[in-house]
Amino acid sequence: MQHFDYYNPTHICFGENRIKSIEHLVPSNSNVLVLFGGNSAKNTGTLDEVISALSKNKVTLFGGVEANPTYEKMMEAVEIVRENNIDFMIAVGGGSVIDGTKFVSAAALYPNDPWEILTTGGKHIGKTVPFGTVLTLPATGSEMNSGSVITHTAKQSKLSFMHRAVFPQFSILDPTKTYTLPKKQLSNGIADAFVHIMEQYLTHPTNAMVQDRYAESLLLSLIELAPKVLSESNDYQSRANFMWVATQALNGLIGAGVPQDWATHVIGHELTALYDIDHARTLAIVLPALLSVKKHHKQDKLVQYAKRVWNITEGSDDEIAQQAIKQTIKFFHSLDIPTQLSDYQLERKDINTIVNQLEKHGMTSLGEHGDIDLQTSQKILEQAL
Amino acid sequence: MQHFDYYNPTHICFGENRIKSIEHLVPSNSNVLVLFGGNSAKNTGTLDEVISALSKNKVTLFGGVEANPTYEKMMEAVEIVRENNIDFMIAVGGGSVIDGTKFVSAAALYPNDPWEILTTGGKHIGKTVPFGTVLTLPATGSEMNSGSVITHTAKQSKLSFMHRAVFPQFSILDPTKTYTLPKKQLSNGIADAFVHIMEQYLTHPTNAMVQDRYAESLLLSLIELAPKVLSESNDYQSRANFMWVATQALNGLIGAGVPQDWATHVIGHELTALYDIDHARTLAIVLPALLSVKKHHKQDKLVQYAKRVWNITEGSDDEIAQQAIKQTIKFFHSLDIPTQLSDYQLERKDINTIVNQLEKHGMTSLGEHGDIDLQTSQKILEQAL
Repeated sequence: MQHFDYYNPTHICFGENRIKSIEHLVPSNSNVLVLFGGNSAKNTGTLDEVISALSKNKVTLFGGVEANPTYEKMMEAVEIVRENNIDFMIAVGGGSVIDGTKFVSAAALYPNDPWEILTTGGKHIGKTVPFGTVLTLPATGSEMNSGSVITHTAKQSKLSFMHRAVFPQFSILDPTKTYTLPKKQLSNGIADAFVHIMEQYLTHPTNAMVQDRYAESLLLSLIELAPKVLSESNDYQSRANFMWVATQALNGLIGAGVPQDWATHVIGHELTALYDIDHARTLAIVLPALLSVKKHHKQDKLVQYAKRVWNITEGSDDEIAQQAIKQTIKFFHSLDIPTQLSDYQLERKDINTIVNQLEKHGMTSLGEHGDIDLQTSQKILEQAL
Repeated sequence: MQHFDYYNPTHICFGENRIKSIEHLVPSNSNVLVLFGGNSAKNTGTLDEVISALSKNKVTLFGGVEANPTYEKMMEAVEIVRENNIDFMIAVGGGSVIDGTKFVSAAALYPNDPWEILTTGGKHIGKTVPFGTVLTLPATGSEMNSGSVITHTAKQSKLSFMHRAVFPQFSILDPTKTYTLPKKQLSNGIADAFVHIMEQYLTHPTNAMVQDRYAESLLLSLIELAPKVLSESNDYQSRANFMWVATQALNGLIGAGVPQDWATHVIGHELTALYDIDHARTLAIVLPALLSVKKHHKQDKLVQYAKRVWNITEGSDDEIAQQAIKQTIKFFHSLDIPTQLSDYQLERKDINTIVNQLEKHGMTSLGEHGDIDLQTSQKILEQAL
């Protein structure tokens, strides 16, 4: 196990009908901005529930936060916070609305150009506007972590930042809020959570027994849950377990004290920024290709993953590792998620464009060893053709 | 899965040489009371390390906190805090010192008689004195939770309280600090952590996939670690994993959203208060007896435990459950911890005394169903003879 710091002060309120707890969680008399995405928050009644729990507060609404929230859109919210002296925010939605709210939280009181938050990874964040979340889409884990990813449309850049001052104060996790989600968002959510776990687990062994077994717990649960989540829309228990798995997948716990990869995410971000492929779907393209290209470096962990998660025990270590990669691909396909660039009409000639963007963003030494240079990224993308 | 609230803001600093981080974690210019137990904190140099990290603070020392910290002793610390305007505390030690410090944290600013904190379970705690911990003995999980157990010597009472205001601000977990621990404290620590997990896991199934698998992860890790922890005193990785398991065993995570038992602890507390048997050793007496007496109510979970933790698959469910209980007893014996009252020269006639104490403390409906009345406690104790 490596040295680590673990800190996560987000208060989770889990269960049906928990939105009303907001009344006690938001300081009374605070001036609240409620951020949300499209019309679903309105149509499902969730927004109304939030507003009625805020009967003692002044409430301003800010809708239209995009999937892959943009710098341009979130800066409109920053203006509203500044002009209206907003002192608390609530994000109602999935990872996009929450990530966007984190950016607003940091940017509204930032003394310099807020774009700097993204180019410096959040290093200089000072005071922030506190916020809570009401999660409607289990996927990103943003409801219980301090990270955020923002897209600058004009610059075709998708960049991230982290800071302990942007943990949500609370997050309401009501599994029934997922009942109305379209199947595509659910399968994307499952794939996203799956890859979050893999980015922190599938590196090399460091004798981190708890972290490894926790990660395997989450992978096993997701694999068991996926068919139920996708076929039974009103099954409380499978939605509850899925929601808690997705939160645990990226709240810092399984990644504390272990090496982490994240190359799949970095390469995937370029695919979203360039070709508008759903975030989770980019991960399903890159992960299996990366595992194949880095198979020898990751062999020990691939074998552990094969045995403990997929119950694959027959064959040489290399064969076991290959079978584990095949099972991973099969799992994505079981979610109706394709795993090749060609499934999105991308060809060999597009790879140069992607690699150029990686270079432009300084993403030249990725992975747990920092040895995924541009050439290796190119190999991974070729493997994914 | 049941509804739950999960909140745990303790910042964990994990690894060798982390004590120096205290310099940045304690507010500068604060007036610090450092609490510790016997001479080991002094002899091992840990206390000196803490003091030198506090070079910018005024420091007062308070030693002599007992195993099973007493109300009487901790009230001496409360007086010191009040008289010296202490505004930060650091507990250096194991669960006893940390539990004692939590009581001081709450009692020093308590407007009424501090004894009320224990008779009301902490319900009316208001402002507290913030504190951090330097853990030297992995066992109780107190370093990352908000619970505390205090013994009133004169009243022969061992009572507990919980409150979100007594989470440690930070805890330093340096596995090398365990190198000098005597074997008995290590085996007690392993047993204590094991039973903490079982109290939250071995009830009845509620479809809490993550919580169940996390609990099993911790049990499997402890079982794998125990021989190494007890035989290799300077093995960093086994001590690090043990330390992290013990913290995870009782930081609220595996118990969130599931029924909990805790009857073993309540009955065990009486054994400690009456006969001065080490806390962990009382648990090893009560747990197997309780599992036997409640075997039919707990059968589904006993079978799951047998299969996933002990790899027992042959036989009827009842036989599988019985074998799992036998393995549990064998595990305690492998730690050199006896599991019967007779091992401590207690006889049938002592059971009345214990049950009378349970009655006196109102412990008449224990367990996840509240159905362990005095008669059932008596049966459990008879089973443990």
